[in-house]
Formats: sequence, structure tokens, C-alpha cells
Amino acid sequence: MTTEILVSEVGPRDGLQSVDRVMPLEAKKAWIAAEAAAGVREIEVGSFVPPRLLPQMADTAELVRFASGIDGLNVAVLVPNLRGAEDAIRAGARKLSIPFSMSETHSLKNVRKDHPAMIQEIRSISALVASGTGERPHFEVGLATAFGCTIEGPVEEDRVVRLAEAALEAGAAEVGLSDTTGYANPAQVKRLVRRLKAALGEGKLNTLHLHNTRGLGLANALAGLEEGITTLDASLGGLGGCPFAPGASGNIVTEDLVFMLEAMGIRTGIDLDKLLEVRSIIAEALPGEPLYGFTPDAGLPLGFERIAA
Amino acid sequence: MTTEILVSEVGPRDGLQSVDRVMPLEAKKAWIAAEAAAGVREIEVGSFVPPRLLPQMADTAELVRFASGIDGLNVAVLVPNLRGAEDAIRAGARKLSIPFSMSETHSLKNVRKDHPAMIQEIRSISALVASGTGERPHFEVGLATAFGCTIEGPVEEDRVVRLAEAALEAGAAEVGLSDTTGYANPAQVKRLVRRLKAALGEGKLNTLHLHNTRGLGLANALAGLEEGITTLDASLGGLGGCPFAPGASGNIVTEDLVFMLEAMGIRTGIDLDKLLEVRSIIAEALPGEPLYGFTPDAGLPLGFERIAA
Repeated sequence: MTTEILVSEVGPRDGLQSVDRVMPLEAKKAWIAAEAAAGVREIEVGSFVPPRLLPQMADTAELVRFASGIDGLNVAVLVPNLRGAEDAIRAGARKLSIPFSMSETHSLKNVRKDHPAMIQEIRSISALVASGTGERPHFEVGLATAFGCTIEGPVEEDRVVRLAEAALEAGAAEVGLSDTTGYANPAQVKRLVRRLKAALGEGKLNTLHLHNTRGLGLANALAGLEEGITTLDASLGGLGGCPFAPGASGNIVTEDLVFMLEAMGIRTGIDLDKLLEVRSIIAEALPGEPLYGFTPDAGLPLGFERIAA
Repeated sequence: MTTEILVSEVGPRDGLQSVDRVMPLEAKKAWIAAEAAAGVREIEVGSFVPPRLLPQMADTAELVRFASGIDGLNVAVLVPNLRGAEDAIRAGARKLSIPFSMSETHSLKNVRKDHPAMIQEIRSISALVASGTGERPHFEVGLATAFGCTIEGPVEEDRVVRLAEAALEAGAAEVGLSDTTGYANPAQVKRLVRRLKAALGEGKLNTLHLHNTRGLGLANALAGLEEGITTLDASLGGLGGCPFAPGASGNIVTEDLVFMLEAMGIRTGIDLDKLLEVRSIIAEALPGEPLYGFTPDAGLPLGFERIAA
């Protein structure tokens, strides 16, 4: 198993877009700065969607500019389409992710595009990225609902492999696997990661994006690690929750994930004590918003050995 | 990996002993009967400790007699010492477990016995079990605080191996590994299970007893499965919680564990839909008591394929 993992913080995007209230820009900046100071090396700071759809993300360009000034931080954003990608590149984002739903029904409902239209969008964004001068941003396609869909139910693994191949053929640098619905189990994670890695070749699948809807998030993360996943998305405090499961966090909780990895001797570069302190920024900016995670309440084990940064 | 797992319900013992209120005997019986009807094949129904210490467990003998009448159910109990074992055998329990704390400080504090005294107790109980006529109960030693202790901190793996060997030499049929403190991580689980299996030989370590204090419970269960663990303790609704972690269940949650296993295609023999219904018995008997678990809130995935019983 790997001895080093990139924990990619997606709370400012995936977490906050699920919270109705808008977190003030200054609080977002403080959050991003504090996590970077704790050693987090990649943060998805927002989403280039129309502000009328997601007012919580209206300040994404401003956040990209702010975060770009933080040394050693990889600034990631979500882009739903070519228009979003243009905005993202203009703002200076280093990583662009587009969600590509493996469930066509979900895709049509979410972005009103069928699979061929999504592949066309990926092709256009890839061309845009390739046309740029200087250091090009990294363009990743997130294979959403890859483990099942709340509308379609099970999603065939053959379909995921076929669409992942099509996304790479259309010019994406890599694909990531997303358990958008919290349907995944460890056996499925292992099987699908293994199949995709075999079909796509070296370095084309590195990231797992997990939700903790049914409590299996960290078990699924472990399964991914064992199959060579090297980037794990997570959200501080599991922010955003899950509308269908009152006690469940949204994404897997960054604090618990980092505790698991560091306890296993897998280096994240993150200072757990500092990371735990970042929660207070969210708690103050969004009073009453539920924050999840077990390690923050329980504290670290007595005599816990931190990995030297 | 195994295709079949024994989920051992420990809620009526480990869960209820952590709840101050006493669950009425009739509710306990209803709970045990309903879980057995859902397909649970082993239940730890109580603990033979003095009622003045744990009034919640005062009806254990009565519960053993009741549960013994349920077809196909393996009736387990905890015994802290020889006196408890005598009571357990008299009542007709089929499985006796004694907690043996790998932390001597914890052992002294908990049962006022050092390690040599505990080995002597294990020897006496083994002799008692062996002296019986008819079908002898199964005697297991639970290696408590095997992954770390809240008083001593880290516990050396060499010590765990040495004490496990001593417990078997003293006559125990098998040992189980207990993460009493919720300190374990998946790498540690794998390492310790592997070491113990190598040292003790075939069939001497089958059970993992996990707490979810830091949210790693199911990841640790997965790690155990991958090393050949075939019995997993769990508690319905994670009953009992954790005094040090307000949001954390006590034991890993039976419902989430069974969901994970069945989703992975590992047969438990448990009907998940029926299992989820059992929660209402606890909720009614202990109003206001927090019940944990994600799957009960989120429900099963759309199109979830149940394994035929």
C-alpha cells in the first residue's frame, strides 16, 4: 500500500453548496488559509455555476485568486460546463473537475445533458485547456453516481468503464470515481477501481470521492487505498450533511480520514492538531450548522504518534 | 475473503451495561427474540457480574434461560471471573467470554487482578468448563485494550501475543481481539490479527470486537475480514454510546455492519429489513436513548440486492 496520500479538501465546494446559508467570503478565506496552514495541499474552493443557481458559490473567482496566493496549495474548482471552465481558467484555477454522471437519467436531470452531450462538453473543455499558454490546468472528469443512482438504482460497471474511456479519449487528463449517492461498498470499490485501472492504464484513475451516507465511507476509502488510489476527497466536519440521512455527514470527514491515514502510518502532510482547530472557523461562520466526525469529539488516542511532517 | 460471517450481537450486554437505566426484562426478551427472528445466530445476552455493580445485568440468568429456548441461537454471556462462570454454566449459557485486559493498569483498575491472577482465573474457568458433563460451553478470552489503553496508551503487540498464548495454555478454547477503547486503525488490526494467527495456530482467533469511537469501526472490521476474521461483534443501534465522544456509538452498529457485509456479497444470514425493525423495541423501552447508525436513517440503496437467506 502507498505510504503517502493526497487528501483533497472539498468542503468549501461540496460542503457549502449543500448548506442553504451563504458563508461570508472572509470566513471562506480564513477556512482555506487555515487548512493550508495545517498542511492540506489541495482544496476545491468553489464551483463556477451561475450564482442564481448556487448563490453560495458566487465568490468562487475571488476565492481562486485568494487561494492561488497560498504557497504550495493546489487550487481546484468544479466546472459544470465549458462556460464554467472558461471562468475557472480566467480566474487561475490549477485543477478543473467536471462531474459526469454515469446515470444518464441523473445527468439529464442535473445538467440537462445526455451522455453524448457530456462527452462533447468534455471534448470542448479539453480543447480549451490545451489551447492555453503557460502552465496548463489539470482537467479531471469525476465519474458521478459510479456506484449507483438514487433514480436508476444500480449502475453497470461496464458502462462506467466505457464512459471513462470515452472521457479520456475526449481529452481529459484523468478520471475520478465518485460515490455521489453513498451507495458504494468496499468490495464494489475494489472491483471498480481494479477494472478501471486495468482498462485506462497507469495514472488515469487516482481519486476517490466518497460520501458517508450509510457509514461505510472510511471502509470504502480503505478499499480504495488497497487498490492504489492516491487521492481522497473529504470535507472538514463532513459539512453539508445528507438530506436523506439526518445523522450522516456529506462527504467523508477530513478529520477522521486524516486520523485513519496517519494512524496507519500513511503520510498526509497534515498536522492533525491544527486541522482539528479549523472546525471553529466553520462553527463561528455558520452557527448551528451540524458538524460531523468522531475524532474531533473523542480526541486522539493517548500516546498517539504523529508522523513527522 | 470469506463468503460468510457470524455477526454476534452484544447490545444486550455491552450496550445496556453502558446505559444507566435498566431495560425491563420483557423488552430485553422481545429484543433478543426479534433479532433471532431476523436471523442473528449469536447474542451476548448479559453479564454475570454482581447486581450491585451492574443492576442492568441482574436478570442475565433469566435471559439465558429464555434465549436458550430459541432454536438455532447461540447464547453467549460475559463472565468476569470463576464465580460468574459458575453462574453462567448453571443457567445454561453456550458461550462464556472473559475480558482479559492487555493493559495491566486497566486490569487492576477494572477487576483488581494483575496478569498472573487473570491467567489463574482463566485456568480455573477452563477446568470448570472441562469438568462438566454433556455438551460443554465454549470458553473464549477477550483480549481487551489490545489496541491501546486510555491509561497506559500504546500496548505492545509482543505483549498481546504473549498473553494470548498464556490464555490458551491456561485452557481457553480461543481468544478474541477487543478494541475496548476505539484506538485501533486498519493497519494495526491487520498486523495484530496476522501475528496472533501465526502464533496461535488455526481456529484460535476468530472474533473481533470493535468500538466506533473515532469512526474507524467499519474500516477496522474490513481489515479484520481481509485477515480471516469470521466473527464480528456489533451492537444494535450502537447502543450505549461512548462517554468520551458524544456523537460516537459504542460498539460498531449492527445495522451498518450487516449492510456492509451483505452489500459486499458476504452472507450473514440476517434479514436486513427485519433487523432494522428491531430498533423500535429499544426506542420504546428506553425513550430518548440515542440510537446510532447511518443505514437506518438513509435506508437501503435503490435496487439493493439482498442475499438469499
